[in-house]
Amino acid sequence: MLDLGSDVRGLTARLVDIESVSGGERALADAIERALGAVGHLTVERDGDAVVARTDLGRPQRVVIAGHIDTVPIVANVPSHESGGRLYGCGTSDMKSGVAVQLKLAAALAEPVHDVTYVFYDCEEVDAERNGLRRLARNRPDLLEGDFAVLMEPTGGVIEGGCQGTMRVEVTTYGERAHSARSWMGHNAIHEAGRVLDVLRAYAPRRPEVEGLRFHEGLNAVFVSGGVAGNVIPDECVVTVNYRFAPDLTEEAAEAHLREVFTGFDVRVTDSAPPARPGLDHPAAAAFVQAVGAGQARAKLGWTDVARMSELGVPAVNYGPGEPTLAHTRDEYVLLDAVVEAEQRMTGWLTGAAGAPFRPEPDDSA
Amino acid sequence: MLDLGSDVRGLTARLVDIESVSGGERALADAIERALGAVGHLTVERDGDAVVARTDLGRPQRVVIAGHIDTVPIVANVPSHESGGRLYGCGTSDMKSGVAVQLKLAAALAEPVHDVTYVFYDCEEVDAERNGLRRLARNRPDLLEGDFAVLMEPTGGVIEGGCQGTMRVEVTTYGERAHSARSWMGHNAIHEAGRVLDVLRAYAPRRPEVEGLRFHEGLNAVFVSGGVAGNVIPDECVVTVNYRFAPDLTEEAAEAHLREVFTGFDVRVTDSAPPARPGLDHPAAAAFVQAVGAGQARAKLGWTDVARMSELGVPAVNYGPGEPTLAHTRDEYVLLDAVVEAEQRMTGWLTGAAGAPFRPEPDDSA
Repeated sequence: MLDLGSDVRGLTARLVDIESVSGGERALADAIERALGAVGHLTVERDGDAVVARTDLGRPQRVVIAGHIDTVPIVANVPSHESGGRLYGCGTSDMKSGVAVQLKLAAALAEPVHDVTYVFYDCEEVDAERNGLRRLARNRPDLLEGDFAVLMEPTGGVIEGGCQGTMRVEVTTYGERAHSARSWMGHNAIHEAGRVLDVLRAYAPRRPEVEGLRFHEGLNAVFVSGGVAGNVIPDECVVTVNYRFAPDLTEEAAEAHLREVFTGFDVRVTDSAPPARPGLDHPAAAAFVQAVGAGQARAKLGWTDVARMSELGVPAVNYGPGEPTLAHTRDEYVLLDAVVEAEQRMTGWLTGAAGAPFRPEPDDSA
Repeated sequence: MLDLGSDVRGLTARLVDIESVSGGERALADAIERALGAVGHLTVERDGDAVVARTDLGRPQRVVIAGHIDTVPIVANVPSHESGGRLYGCGTSDMKSGVAVQLKLAAALAEPVHDVTYVFYDCEEVDAERNGLRRLARNRPDLLEGDFAVLMEPTGGVIEGGCQGTMRVEVTTYGERAHSARSWMGHNAIHEAGRVLDVLRAYAPRRPEVEGLRFHEGLNAVFVSGGVAGNVIPDECVVTVNYRFAPDLTEEAAEAHLREVFTGFDVRVTDSAPPARPGLDHPAAAAFVQAVGAGQARAKLGWTDVARMSELGVPAVNYGPGEPTLAHTRDEYVLLDAVVEAEQRMTGWLTGAAGAPFRPEPDDSA
């Protein structure tokens, strides 16, 4: 049984020690469901291995506080151990420390200033189609309704707003096969792909400011493949390009941009995920930034589930005590002081404590 | 039993009808060995499924006339059939028509003007290490000694002299991995490979004249490969380049040239085969060009076993009645008149008939 009255540091360790690699979250979901079921001011529901607990106080606003309970595969780094103010183990930063904060808030705050929906979901670390938040959005969209959402992913204690979209396209060049001893009888598709690389090498990525946050785009080849045999002039070459685009563009606009950039080439979209605007102009978000972030926030450049919340019409940010650079590493740890601080800041927000006025954090990218 | 007194056209058909896909040449080698063994003026020896028959008349010069007896796999194109002056079937052009001419010459010419070594060898259509001529060169180099050699490969009845060398190198570019959402933290090796393609696109291949024949070099990417994952800036990209070089360069000079062309890149040689000079200035070769080619010859651009003979110190050319463009096709055929013409021309040469003076054929490549 999880003891939600225990210190958030000890609770984090307890959560890490219940293994929950993606697809194997049942034991942890059971423990969370049972512990929250014993809290009188919450209504608890379950969908697969996702657990949703809500207050229902009739507040004018509802906020969603969400986190995934699965981890990447364990590499001899469970159970957890503490050393020098750090808790080591798989999932300490990504993101059982965040989940521990969620659980502490859920149990402790019987009368928060906003109604709160606490979401604990499965399968975030694997293919998008298995994602538990995606399943919830399809099965029970009512459970995800709210005016603002916080995903407690590892951000090193900094609020990260919005997220960039990502699109992958295959840019294919064509030629004509010939024996390489008579190469002038054919046309070399790999040489032709040099023109695609010319475009990429000359490309100047945008760094637009969106709602006060500085984004940073990127256009890069992530794969290249071509060739038939060691003595044949190749007739096809495929450059797979990944475009990371700021949230002032829609997916449609991003695709149109790529088709313009690669005018004259065969361009096929193979994968796409939308960006999310920061949404920090929403009153609930602005209040959150003041109370929790001491007025500071920065742009999220990677793609996260905030985009999924954004698609549901719920402005969302990332904020959590974990260290993003340690996620998915063998030596993953979390600073225990940071977990305590996150609990305190979130508590301050949900109990109405004041914060500093919002100002974007200085841009830290080179 | 092969009837070496029969017409060369019928003999070609008979040879085609004895299946001899590489590795399965025994029945045909047996038939050839038996038929030549019955010819009084020849000494016949066997090595594996290669058969070598020689005259020994004490002539001042010895010529080697060689051909492979294997074929590529059959695709419902055996037995042969004749239609409109063409003999259809697997191996008709490549190169049982040439072998039929060899057999006719061997049986008919008891007193040729040069001593002749007739070589019938196995496994030319497969990996170089299985090649029967290579095995003979190792086991019985004495059997391949001579002043001049003719390989009766399909050349459409034109003498092809020398051959270009071929060298493959891997040109590797390096970068630094990063998440593609923060691409500026890394360095893209595929973009870097654009500089390799720049070199290839700007390269002007040489077309040197060597001993009166016009060669035509080529420098081409035949493979390109790079990429780690759809969201990772790649740290390595390999461009495999094939250099076809004229016989005025050695393999060492070719490698030095590539290292100069790709200065600053990581260049690794993965494969190489030497070129062969035409050797048409040799008196025996010049006489052959006059007698058989009516004074005409052109450069061989692909790599063939003439390079192997050249390495043994025997100048060699390709000459045969088959059509090179039909080799390895399902609808392979040979023009029966061309087979008769090749037999007549070769007979004229070996019996001392005169020919026109040598002049190179006009360059036919675009």
